[in-house]
Amino acid sequence: MELTVYSDEHYMKEALKQAQMAFDQDEIPVGAIVVCQKTIIARAYNQTEMLNDVTAHAEMLAITSAANYLGGKYLKDCTLYITMEPCGMCAGALFWSQINKIVYALPDEKRGFTKINPAMIHPKTEVRAGLMASESKQLIDAFFTNARRKN
Amino acid sequence: MELTVYSDEHYMKEALKQAQMAFDQDEIPVGAIVVCQKTIIARAYNQTEMLNDVTAHAEMLAITSAANYLGGKYLKDCTLYITMEPCGMCAGALFWSQINKIVYALPDEKRGFTKINPAMIHPKTEVRAGLMASESKQLIDAFFTNARRKN
Repeated sequence: MELTVYSDEHYMKEALKQAQMAFDQDEIPVGAIVVCQKTIIARAYNQTEMLNDVTAHAEMLAITSAANYLGGKYLKDCTLYITMEPCGMCAGALFWSQINKIVYALPDEKRGFTKINPAMIHPKTEVRAGLMASESKQLIDAFFTNARRKN
Repeated sequence: MELTVYSDEHYMKEALKQAQMAFDQDEIPVGAIVVCQKTIIARAYNQTEMLNDVTAHAEMLAITSAANYLGGKYLKDCTLYITMEPCGMCAGALFWSQINKIVYALPDEKRGFTKINPAMIHPKTEVRAGLMASESKQLIDAFFTNARRKN
């Protein structure tokens, strides 16, 4: 596995750290990073429970944070690293953001955007799927095993 | 046209007032209202320009605001009134919210969720389309005529 400083793997590791932070706070463990010109300009993790808000997915928070950093609403030169396949809501937001590239780890067989309509993503956006999916799956599986134990 | 206090038409008129507020602030004029047990619990209008944020559609702001009011993230007993057909992002958010009913005015031939996948909306959610579409269209058309004049 390539793990140089500016590799997709390097940034996905950072996204996985965000997912771990969600896990530690009893949130479904999904993390996101936005990179622009080799710099991480936004980090976020799923906060739907903490914020009591279904829109607070990691991607949504990362998009808002990155736009805030850049002072403009489009993310044309940016890449989003996300530990799980974006859902329809997040894919729709990524469409509007005109983001350059999306790298996601674990496919979401139930709610992933590719199950709704793969063409939801902007035609100019490059998509790389499945990178470090097993690391992401490990966290997700641990979360749901814990959740079942608690119930 | 029915316009009693608790009719869909009454609430859509309130959503159109929100769209007018967006128009007055040079935002694409789309407005939303969330109603729960006959009470308006959230009002919002598109603020993508003001907030420099592609996720700041009227529906998204209204969902967050309504959940905040209710102190819970699900909108199972609520109805959303929106002056334009929700896009993919907003339909995805409405899916997660488990909202009871959506009433929208103007269909969006380009970016409406029905063009992406009509099944994006939660199967339990009732949808009423086209209510007061001409009033909404009038605002949208005026906005784009003005925008063309400015360019």
